[in-house]
Amino acid sequence: MASPDDTTNPSAHLIAARQIQGTSVFSPALEKLGSVEDVMIDRASGRIAYAVLRFGGFLGIGDHYYPLPWEKLSYSPEMGGYITDIGRDVLQGAPSYPDEAAASWDDKAWSRDVYAYYGVRPFWDLMP
Amino acid sequence: MASPDDTTNPSAHLIAARQIQGTSVFSPALEKLGSVEDVMIDRASGRIAYAVLRFGGFLGIGDHYYPLPWEKLSYSPEMGGYITDIGRDVLQGAPSYPDEAAASWDDKAWSRDVYAYYGVRPFWDLMP
Repeated sequence: MASPDDTTNPSAHLIAARQIQGTSVFSPALEKLGSVEDVMIDRASGRIAYAVLRFGGFLGIGDHYYPLPWEKLSYSPEMGGYITDIGRDVLQGAPSYPDEAAASWDDKAWSRDVYAYYGVRPFWDLMP
Repeated sequence: MASPDDTTNPSAHLIAARQIQGTSVFSPALEKLGSVEDVMIDRASGRIAYAVLRFGGFLGIGDHYYPLPWEKLSYSPEMGGYITDIGRDVLQGAPSYPDEAAASWDDKAWSRDVYAYYGVRPFWDLMP
């Protein structure tokens, strides 16, 4: 019987949000980029709209928040965190916001830009 | 510009997982049943598999965890929490587990039973 908190079990289908929060994110070069601050959930569909990566400051000061499509993170039991195919250079030019109040969550054009930046089709385009 | 943490804003499309965790859940009679312990996310699809309601003990002792389909919770700005159409009596007979290690998350039949109990079609049946 697999515990939902056993993030080292790659066969587990489910994961608790609490276990995603704070998990490290690594670049394709396995360099630590930051960690998952939280996941933003689309209320109506119950889908993750973004995983929010905290990245870019120094010792936690000056960090920005980078919304990422969920598809961009894949869990690596070896690393004990997510590996993304987004390099540090690509991330540096990505849509971000300095604090939660500054995020344009309800701005559809902004959301579209985020997904376009990463070349991912937004899930709302794929819904029936 | 709406903040994701403004849970009193019913027009916000997105909500942070951190804002769901700990939110009260009320019965149709507006009696407080418990609170949302966490949301369980299906890794592959990025969808909420269950909202986990903590319910049933006395002053937090002896609580059990009740996985609920996300569709069963609707946010009420007036109540400052979720209202569910599940009554206390229905909940008392519902599938639950005493602690995280005891949950059969990866047991497909168990998951199907949870959804069947509430008369909700599981999202994995609706996926393309």
